[in-house]
Amino acid sequence: MEFQTKIGKSTRDQIFVHGYDLTEDLIGKITLADMAFLGAMHRKPTENESKMLNALLVAICEHGYTPSSISTRLTYLGAPESVQSAVAAGLLGAGTVYLGAMEYVAEMLQDAFQKYGEERVLQEIASLVINERQESGKQLPGFGHPVHKPEDPRTTRLFAIAEELGFNGKNSQLLKEIHRQICEKKGKTITLNAVGAIGAIMADMGIDYRVVKSFAVAARAVGLVAHIVEEVEVGRKESFGQQLFDYIEEHTDYRG
Amino acid sequence: MEFQTKIGKSTRDQIFVHGYDLTEDLIGKITLADMAFLGAMHRKPTENESKMLNALLVAICEHGYTPSSISTRLTYLGAPESVQSAVAAGLLGAGTVYLGAMEYVAEMLQDAFQKYGEERVLQEIASLVINERQESGKQLPGFGHPVHKPEDPRTTRLFAIAEELGFNGKNSQLLKEIHRQICEKKGKTITLNAVGAIGAIMADMGIDYRVVKSFAVAARAVGLVAHIVEEVEVGRKESFGQQLFDYIEEHTDYRG
Amino acid sequence: MEFQTKIGKSTRDQIFVHGYDLTEDLIGKITLADMAFLGAMHRKPTENESKMLNALLVAICEHGYTPSSISTRLTYLGAPESVQSAVAAGLLGAGTVYLGAMEYVAEMLQDAFQKYGEERVLQEIASLVINERQESGKQLPGFGHPVHKPEDPRTTRLFAIAEELGFNGKNSQLLKEIHRQICEKKGKTITLNAVGAIGAIMADMGIDYRVVKSFAVAARAVGLVAHIVEEVEVGRKESFGQQLFDYIEEHTDYRG
Amino acid sequence: MEFQTKIGKSTRDQIFVHGYDLTEDLIGKITLADMAFLGAMHRKPTENESKMLNALLVAICEHGYTPSSISTRLTYLGAPESVQSAVAAGLLGAGTVYLGAMEYVAEMLQDAFQKYGEERVLQEIASLVINERQESGKQLPGFGHPVHKPEDPRTTRLFAIAEELGFNGKNSQLLKEIHRQICEKKGKTITLNAVGAIGAIMADMGIDYRVVKSFAVAARAVGLVAHIVEEVEVGRKESFGQQLFDYIEEHTDYRG
Repeated sequence: MEFQTKIGKSTRDQIFVHGYDLTEDLIGKITLADMAFLGAMHRKPTENESKMLNALLVAICEHGYTPSSISTRLTYLGAPESVQSAVAAGLLGAGTVYLGAMEYVAEMLQDAFQKYGEERVLQEIASLVINERQESGKQLPGFGHPVHKPEDPRTTRLFAIAEELGFNGKNSQLLKEIHRQICEKKGKTITLNAVGAIGAIMADMGIDYRVVKSFAVAARAVGLVAHIVEEVEVGRKESFGQQLFDYIEEHTDYRG
Repeated sequence: MEFQTKIGKSTRDQIFVHGYDLTEDLIGKITLADMAFLGAMHRKPTENESKMLNALLVAICEHGYTPSSISTRLTYLGAPESVQSAVAAGLLGAGTVYLGAMEYVAEMLQDAFQKYGEERVLQEIASLVINERQESGKQLPGFGHPVHKPEDPRTTRLFAIAEELGFNGKNSQLLKEIHRQICEKKGKTITLNAVGAIGAIMADMGIDYRVVKSFAVAARAVGLVAHIVEEVEVGRKESFGQQLFDYIEEHTDYRG
Repeated sequence: MEFQTKIGKSTRDQIFVHGYDLTEDLIGKITLADMAFLGAMHRKPTENESKMLNALLVAICEHGYTPSSISTRLTYLGAPESVQSAVAAGLLGAGTVYLGAMEYVAEMLQDAFQKYGEERVLQEIASLVINERQESGKQLPGFGHPVHKPEDPRTTRLFAIAEELGFNGKNSQLLKEIHRQICEKKGKTITLNAVGAIGAIMADMGIDYRVVKSFAVAARAVGLVAHIVEEVEVGRKESFGQQLFDYIEEHTDYRG
Repeated sequence: MEFQTKIGKSTRDQIFVHGYDLTEDLIGKITLADMAFLGAMHRKPTENESKMLNALLVAICEHGYTPSSISTRLTYLGAPESVQSAVAAGLLGAGTVYLGAMEYVAEMLQDAFQKYGEERVLQEIASLVINERQESGKQLPGFGHPVHKPEDPRTTRLFAIAEELGFNGKNSQLLKEIHRQICEKKGKTITLNAVGAIGAIMADMGIDYRVVKSFAVAARAVGLVAHIVEEVEVGRKESFGQQLFDYIEEHTDYRG
């Protein structure tokens, strides 16, 4: 049997990653986020691509206390010898509910251009997408936010950076047009959330929608470092995990 | 009950992370890796710190086919709808065997200075550390490599960058001195591996040894993106996961 | 805040689980599998229910080398100090591809009776279900097997036990009728696989389709014990994980 | 390459597990827990072994709200489509802190007999073990409990069942003697906890200490089913996960 990969190999004194010499071409020359780009696109990003990608992943990597980061802290409480388990537990909650929309937005936009052609005016395509969703009863992904209303500050910032760096492509423009039409229809401003914006900009960077979410998962892993650090720093007894567990024990009503 | 955190909070139109305004101070201004630094040190890295950290994490993030990345691909085979599970499965193998040394090196060095004082000459401290380990029968972490002999190309490169950027501190110097003495004792050059070098340099950057490994785990999550992408690109039937599974099925001798 | 649960509480000298006294009513009186039943149905199983459930879970818990058990072994290779990680990694591959069908079968059957009523003859309902799937292009879950053709020996055995213990209810009967009609249509015998049979019998036991898969996941965790044991017994060097990793390293063609 | 295993193989119409025909010898004839025994001991348990093992695993499988089951519920909140992730997240907290003692007790007892011989009177061996631990500053595992003082009701029950079924062997007797001496030394009754009792009884059943914990992990997976069921039954909005998350959001003091 012969397995194949484009990813990497090692010799006695060299390591190759996607065709690049790791020590000569990559270490000290590209950022951590660029390694994910390299994995997805099989080439190093340009300077602008690197800036854009880092901006997107910085935007998505930290959210304070979330079901994910709480699971990380509770897992650390029981298995402090195994920080990888704490990170893994935190990632497992990144399912369809919170992060899925990033993928669904990229898919919706990439599908729309494939289905309706690229020649039509965006206004028309946006309208077709909205109608299609309405008819099939499927939700439009990328809209709404429990806290950031009517504007998600990350969306504004990310679209501004995308504009500046040359990534305000057709996908972002289509998503903005869909947003415009929905707000018009509803007669009020609905939030175009950060997850939606990121899905659109990643689509404009040429990243396949099936891969988009794995970038977000990796960024979350980076964000979870801070949560482990905070548990380590305050010490077991004062840790969030321990305090939360104690609180729940004392405030549970058993109805068996 | 009132929980506390320094990590983050959101208001209607602002998000704060470690005291910084996410959209004003962080998005578009720092790299993804810097978010882990921010989490561990509670401040943004300097330009040199950012460069150093990115170099370290780029060095550790990808290793081609490893038990970790193989688990990621096999998990993706069974649960392609859940890329976070594939990444998590890949992280779970990052236990004591492969990545642990990074933490152990940082701990050994930070402990040595605490125990033996910082005034002694490094030569003496190195000798004390080696003897102590020998007496207790504990292994010296950070040495040896199955492929890269007698030099790990990443070690050379990372120490050169550390020198250039001003991070060739006492921890790296002590590790190098321990290395010199061991090679002298054994009469041959033992590899000072990348994991060891990274542990020492992170110690010189001021990062607590208990936290060092979580950086590596996060970097691995970034590296695993490429493995998911490759499975997606070649398609299920031709995927590494499927081919490996088929091969094992055909080549298993049952001795029940 | 007051959290609620029916599951369990402890006092100084008693532990209650679902209304039962753990030491008086459960320990030594019910089997491990019955604890899952208790969790799902909020009462202890009858003797026949216990026998049926144990039979179902014994049937599903072990499959030799699978992507799941291989991931468990590879994870153990890197993190032998953390067997829970090895088990968790093995569970993560239990996604839509291999185990999903159990849930889909139970859902299909429970939905069919809800939609088409319970008064119609099974022949008619089966035909409606098949047509509905055909029209919407959705696959019929529970059929086909790569090895066991044209009969899955577990299916035969499980349906016989169900018959004997009084669980050959409407769901199993409907699935068998669907099977009969498909085979007739195709002019050859298609395998009704074990996962399908289990889904139907669990539906006949009154277990909600949304919960069915978690039983299988728990059974898999039990099955993974054997794989960790085998790695422990043969020792690291001769372990499957190490040998597999070595083989892959030597047989990889790098096309970067 | 030829991989080996004693665990299982399939032919067209038969499945073998550890030398037994799955459909003829196992399904309908043994309990789920027995499959773990079969994996560890390579033979079916006797009737008494099966009763004992089921009693042990029933005792350990459910604990109400714990860091583990809370992580399961929080993970389900974010990824309801992936119950295996919820179970896996719950297992990852089963590290050294809560479950480790089971393994440590079995190891301590098995080591003691190997080191001090089996001929000495238990009183003497117990005293040697206690002194050894005291000198090396290592904790004695299996003692103490936050709630169950001075007696853990599960311990009493499990030792009674072990007595009745013929498993009150040297390991259990040594642990009880250690317990007696400690209480004497301290002048008060310290709890001999369930995890300790289970470690001793499993040692008396002949199960290797390195494998003991994987049984507990599997039992926990069974216990987590109930927690997923409860989240499913009350529905997303009223789920524990959602309510906990909301509560934390409203009660967090940001000190950035």
